[in-house]
Amino acid sequence: MKAIQNDRFLKALRREPVDHTPIWIMRQAGRYLPEYRELRKKAGDFLSLCKNPELACEATMQPIRRFDLDAAILFSDILTIPDAMGLGLSFLEGEGPHFAKTIRSMADVKALPILDPNRDLGYVMQAVKTIKRELHNKVPLIGFSGSPWTLATYMIEGGSSKDFNQAKAMLYKAPEIMKALLTSLSQAVTDYLAAQIDAGVDVVMIFDTWGGLLTPECYREFSLHYMQQVVSTLKSRYPAIPIILFSKGCAHSLTEMADTGASALGIDWTTSIGKARKLVGNKVALQGNLDPSVLYAEPTKIRSEAARIIHEFGRHPGHIFNLGHGIHPGINPDHVATLIDEVHSVSSNESSST
Amino acid sequence: MKAIQNDRFLKALRREPVDHTPIWIMRQAGRYLPEYRELRKKAGDFLSLCKNPELACEATMQPIRRFDLDAAILFSDILTIPDAMGLGLSFLEGEGPHFAKTIRSMADVKALPILDPNRDLGYVMQAVKTIKRELHNKVPLIGFSGSPWTLATYMIEGGSSKDFNQAKAMLYKAPEIMKALLTSLSQAVTDYLAAQIDAGVDVVMIFDTWGGLLTPECYREFSLHYMQQVVSTLKSRYPAIPIILFSKGCAHSLTEMADTGASALGIDWTTSIGKARKLVGNKVALQGNLDPSVLYAEPTKIRSEAARIIHEFGRHPGHIFNLGHGIHPGINPDHVATLIDEVHSVSSNESSST
Repeated sequence: MKAIQNDRFLKALRREPVDHTPIWIMRQAGRYLPEYRELRKKAGDFLSLCKNPELACEATMQPIRRFDLDAAILFSDILTIPDAMGLGLSFLEGEGPHFAKTIRSMADVKALPILDPNRDLGYVMQAVKTIKRELHNKVPLIGFSGSPWTLATYMIEGGSSKDFNQAKAMLYKAPEIMKALLTSLSQAVTDYLAAQIDAGVDVVMIFDTWGGLLTPECYREFSLHYMQQVVSTLKSRYPAIPIILFSKGCAHSLTEMADTGASALGIDWTTSIGKARKLVGNKVALQGNLDPSVLYAEPTKIRSEAARIIHEFGRHPGHIFNLGHGIHPGINPDHVATLIDEVHSVSSNESSST
Repeated sequence: MKAIQNDRFLKALRREPVDHTPIWIMRQAGRYLPEYRELRKKAGDFLSLCKNPELACEATMQPIRRFDLDAAILFSDILTIPDAMGLGLSFLEGEGPHFAKTIRSMADVKALPILDPNRDLGYVMQAVKTIKRELHNKVPLIGFSGSPWTLATYMIEGGSSKDFNQAKAMLYKAPEIMKALLTSLSQAVTDYLAAQIDAGVDVVMIFDTWGGLLTPECYREFSLHYMQQVVSTLKSRYPAIPIILFSKGCAHSLTEMADTGASALGIDWTTSIGKARKLVGNKVALQGNLDPSVLYAEPTKIRSEAARIIHEFGRHPGHIFNLGHGIHPGINPDHVATLIDEVHSVSSNESSST
């Protein structure tokens, strides 16, 4: 791997001291940017944008050109794996993801193909290579996947849902089908992230958007257990590649997540990052956790809320600033610039003042 | 107040010993019951059912006749207050609540009328009186209201929403408007619950369905603070009436909730009830916390999950069994009977075995 010019993010992931707290923003390439909306128009729909490596590269680069961000993240979707498995993903305008086929039985699970990511998700690997070339090692590139549990919820439900009743019902009624599905998805997620690493990403992140639907016991049995398998395999094959786990709404299991061997944990805004740090100690870095709605506020409020989180984390290495969830489409891009400026400046004052 | 025949629920709220753990179920009068679906058909839409005291009484009584439940809960909706304030509530089939008017400015807040619950929500008080007569003091009757914050989210958004961006944006952009609205709603909720108590309810519960959208700091400032006002006023006027607070997804602030003077806290299924009990000590009773999806499972699984929660709570007084959220419409009523039987029998074995 060639040296990355701005390596604050990588250093923070290793809990090494940095000149100031690195920041990137979940969904930083997205609809709040006018240049993204233009690109989207050109591509047609969202999925066509994901599947076109040149356009996906352009979407990835847009926020990097506009802002002083410390990491880039592959422009893609968490549902590429089930799409490649033949479930027929589409995005209905304003309604979110929809699958033509759903998983409801053991026969459905057994019929799922074993993916070869370089063949079946070749467009993603091509995008990674294109982005890496375009980035010129300016900042690190994050690759990602949905967690096995989160992918399973969508595959069972057939799309998004308020409370994923079908998936939850299967978990309690037919745990053996659920576990067969999760086992198959763990393999797919592992292979997919390995292929992204082979293609050039510097860091990988696992998005467990729906871990928070579960009781703490079920979270450990049906979500964390399978993420652990992914982490263990990747760690043994790629010891130098940091892995970030993000289970939204799962503050109850932060210590268990920290024991997986992941380098960092994503934290949503419903937890105090100071308390989270006390819980996990020096085992992992933490990434987060500004309430995405703060970006609706006036610049002074954005600055004070960002500073509050940096103070709350305290003077320890291992903080990566981020929102607690993806940025909303209605946010003013200037507010993002304010946030990045505040995070960089307050954290460097912070470190020089000690 | 005349003596209630089955007073297990009231005793548990006072943390007194009981022969077995009392149970009631959020949304126990609802679509999972065939007799409710019949009644709904007769009433026309959901709101007409709420507004007709005779039919609301019938809906309330249906689960009491069918099951061995330890409490009845007034059949109504959390959005009766904003409806009475003139926002024009309707329920679109399959889409949830919708308001004709929304609250977006200080002028909107100032234009809200001060309610007289006996005049403006007379149908609710009439329903309470009718139900009390019909119950013959068999079990206690729970009255309820949405919390000021939860009512505000719907009034700003104009209905339900995935993440209530408008309400969250107002909180950060115009906290003075939000606080004016919350102040006005605190008064309305207090008066509404006082009128329900005057009409005859034995216990009141405040549903803070959307407290979990907030950071812990914002939860305390924008939700808990206003519930505290309601609790303090009601406690001074009606010291004998127990108050239950339920903030979904707010396990981060259980100790603060326990300090409000409420008798009991509702706990959702994302928290261990054993851990919650350790946090709050002997200050309050706890109500919960079975994952509603467990009721999709086979009876043996329902029994083992119910028993697990009872064991987790341990041999202390002050447990009221409930789901962690409302029962789903697709649940088999026989599964509810199984749950109630298990809760009653395992908890009485439990107490006799020590």
